[in-house]
Amino acid sequence: MFLSNFASYKRAHQSLHRYFSCTKWLLIVQIVIFFNQPSQATSYTSEALADEVHQLPGLKQSIRFRHFSGYFNVGSNDRLHYWFFESQGNASADPVVLWLNGGPGCSSLSGLINEHGPFSIEEDLTLSLRNTSWNKFANIIYLESPIGVGYSYNTQQDYTSSDNSTAMKNHQAIKEFYKRFPQYSLSNFYLSGESYGAVYVTTLALRLIQDSSLSLAGIMIGSGIFDFQKNFDSAMYFGYYHALYGPVLWDRIKKFCCYAEEKCIFYQSNEPICQFYFLKAYRRLFADGLNSYNVYQDCWSETPYNTRLQYSISALAPNKWDLEYTTPRCFNRSKEKIYFNLPQVRSALHIHSQASTWAICNSNVYRRYQFQYKSILNQLQTLRNYRILLYFGDTDLICNIVGGRWNVEHLNRTMIQELRPWHYTNENGKQVAGFVERFQNLDYLTVKGAGHLVSEGKPNEVMVMFKSFIQNVNYP
Amino acid sequence: MFLSNFASYKRAHQSLHRYFSCTKWLLIVQIVIFFNQPSQATSYTSEALADEVHQLPGLKQSIRFRHFSGYFNVGSNDRLHYWFFESQGNASADPVVLWLNGGPGCSSLSGLINEHGPFSIEEDLTLSLRNTSWNKFANIIYLESPIGVGYSYNTQQDYTSSDNSTAMKNHQAIKEFYKRFPQYSLSNFYLSGESYGAVYVTTLALRLIQDSSLSLAGIMIGSGIFDFQKNFDSAMYFGYYHALYGPVLWDRIKKFCCYAEEKCIFYQSNEPICQFYFLKAYRRLFADGLNSYNVYQDCWSETPYNTRLQYSISALAPNKWDLEYTTPRCFNRSKEKIYFNLPQVRSALHIHSQASTWAICNSNVYRRYQFQYKSILNQLQTLRNYRILLYFGDTDLICNIVGGRWNVEHLNRTMIQELRPWHYTNENGKQVAGFVERFQNLDYLTVKGAGHLVSEGKPNEVMVMFKSFIQNVNYP
Repeated sequence: MFLSNFASYKRAHQSLHRYFSCTKWLLIVQIVIFFNQPSQATSYTSEALADEVHQLPGLKQSIRFRHFSGYFNVGSNDRLHYWFFESQGNASADPVVLWLNGGPGCSSLSGLINEHGPFSIEEDLTLSLRNTSWNKFANIIYLESPIGVGYSYNTQQDYTSSDNSTAMKNHQAIKEFYKRFPQYSLSNFYLSGESYGAVYVTTLALRLIQDSSLSLAGIMIGSGIFDFQKNFDSAMYFGYYHALYGPVLWDRIKKFCCYAEEKCIFYQSNEPICQFYFLKAYRRLFADGLNSYNVYQDCWSETPYNTRLQYSISALAPNKWDLEYTTPRCFNRSKEKIYFNLPQVRSALHIHSQASTWAICNSNVYRRYQFQYKSILNQLQTLRNYRILLYFGDTDLICNIVGGRWNVEHLNRTMIQELRPWHYTNENGKQVAGFVERFQNLDYLTVKGAGHLVSEGKPNEVMVMFKSFIQNVNYP
Repeated sequence: MFLSNFASYKRAHQSLHRYFSCTKWLLIVQIVIFFNQPSQATSYTSEALADEVHQLPGLKQSIRFRHFSGYFNVGSNDRLHYWFFESQGNASADPVVLWLNGGPGCSSLSGLINEHGPFSIEEDLTLSLRNTSWNKFANIIYLESPIGVGYSYNTQQDYTSSDNSTAMKNHQAIKEFYKRFPQYSLSNFYLSGESYGAVYVTTLALRLIQDSSLSLAGIMIGSGIFDFQKNFDSAMYFGYYHALYGPVLWDRIKKFCCYAEEKCIFYQSNEPICQFYFLKAYRRLFADGLNSYNVYQDCWSETPYNTRLQYSISALAPNKWDLEYTTPRCFNRSKEKIYFNLPQVRSALHIHSQASTWAICNSNVYRRYQFQYKSILNQLQTLRNYRILLYFGDTDLICNIVGGRWNVEHLNRTMIQELRPWHYTNENGKQVAGFVERFQNLDYLTVKGAGHLVSEGKPNEVMVMFKSFIQNVNYP
């Protein structure tokens, strides 16, 4: 931070020198510049400085940004862990982005480590710098929410949360962030999140826009769940047209679940025979060996084939099938778990001794979570004056692109631009990165070949998308 | 070959030894065995031996199978190049499989080098052995057809072909094969091919079953085109449900091209307004930057973005749009082209001096080709007494899985097994390799994540499929 400000000071100096060659003028100007220059070394609060991370086990390379890890008090006993990365660009000019993973129960450090944070963890537990880190263009807060997720904790070990309590506490966390980092209070502020994070982000945004002390610039949601009915009804179409189940079953589902052409209720139909065939297709899609996070990728597991596939059903159809829920299946997250539980890592990140063992997803939190919204589309509609980006990995089954489109249709915004390819360039030249459709204050965007964790599979593409959105320029 | 026959001789010897311990009996038996044992060194025709390939430039490893490259005379001036690989298993017991690439105009050496032959070409033009070569379980003939493709040639440089003339000449080539390799005349014989190879294989099979000197065991077609109408009508559904074009266009296409629920003619509609919107979607799918061979992969090209994408339209909608056709786009095939035109390679493969420069696909052949079938489904139906496998890469747009299903429905066979996952095992454990649906003498199978060149992307999965089919056991 100091280095980059010194550089910009020097550039300003050189530039000004051309216009004011008179020594007296120059002296005055230099004095003015000196006093206007935010002195980063002293502008941090003592609380922020106490949270600053000075070294990280396994990180060999030097870094050109400052980062802070600690806790926000969001209730008498509630401590939300955050990890804040200043931008590698121009921290004071770049926006602030809050990131929330979903689950409910999954740590936002998943987004940090596996998707778009500055670091990734290698097999030997060293950290590598990620070229496609979002903090190249923005200041990013990774917040572990709700209470009990990751390093967050409740001093009384009370891990019951709901959609509304989560929004309330996340709101409190943001206010605490600005108390601790007041120098960012004038920066553009964005909310972002993934999967069930759609509910967190939307409900949080509704609180923020009623808080005159805060100013929301926009929200960004990756592979979000906005409406359970639309999500699982659309999965039937996605599954059939991706040939994941067959025409015999498709014909029966349509026969028993549809009341008119393309008017069907598959999920939570009241007809037992429809329920029967829907469940048959549903199990094929989510519990029959496919990696439903990305249908074209392997499903990794240490556990046997026929016992490893129960996650998705319970995670995504809460209150419907109460099967085992542990960590996200099909991913190997063992090195993250080892790294974040190393005593020296916990110490470097100022993790409180009361925080339990870090896990990518916490089944306790999930089991006790109260789902209050089956749909947040109407809530999302309330945000029509704010810029919104809904992006989806097009090979994700958990929150599929067909349902993504249906959500957008439900919002009924004025279309500005029909669905078109957007692009990025790699070693093979210009490529189709996905497709984008633009409406008044709303972009619906797909990332080609990406799964549920959109940035994990396609970090370069998502980087282009992220930059375009926060800089408010058209997708290339 | 000699080694493996020696081994089987030795096994027979040991086995017999247990039953006949009497020396006299053993001697008699040994004499009988000796005379019945095909003496491979002398059982080859002199023509076959003249075609044997003794060394290949760039091949450093020793190989345990014999292979032969040469020409079949299939008309007074027509010379079809073949490359025949004996099985690495038990050549005399394993079936013989003929492979034909499509185009029309593409070399079957594409299947050999890029998909399932014993060799692949490295960047430095050395050859590597392929672990997933089909000749591990079968004797494979790669035939370059029709005349003008690859190393095949016409002594008068006449490169006009049609579906019927191709079938006739391929039939002649098979008869020539058995003349040159009579020791395989009792082996099971399969036809296989890819893409437009569907037409070659089907029309050829119809000839073979009327030739009492030949005995067909079955056919196997990868990502085949069986019916232009079904192929391109289904591409509209595939494209929409993969979010490759948007709902505005989809609604218009349906409005102007459908006359009842799910009764639509998109491709070759007589309605100009339907044609207009169909063409708009068609161009999106096949000429707007996507790799239509595998929608989730990059499109490689040395040529600029906006000029490289015209191949598919002309190749797949013949007589409809007459755009530039050169080599298949989105692939880098430069090393194949260099390798197969090296003088020492042509010499090792006994390539005739009249054969022109080898190309992965020959535009001259394509341009002069007469398409006689817009659909070969009825012809395929005639083969109902023969085992058929139709397999598709499920990320291929050129010949998509939705159309694949429609073809199968058209054949109206008795279903034996509903669509189910089939599996293979890799370093991550048991995986869904794709889906399979079984009918009387007909298997419809998808390979998950594979594109148009099914084996190229998923060689391990295809190996399991290939072995299951030719050994007539259920897919795992």
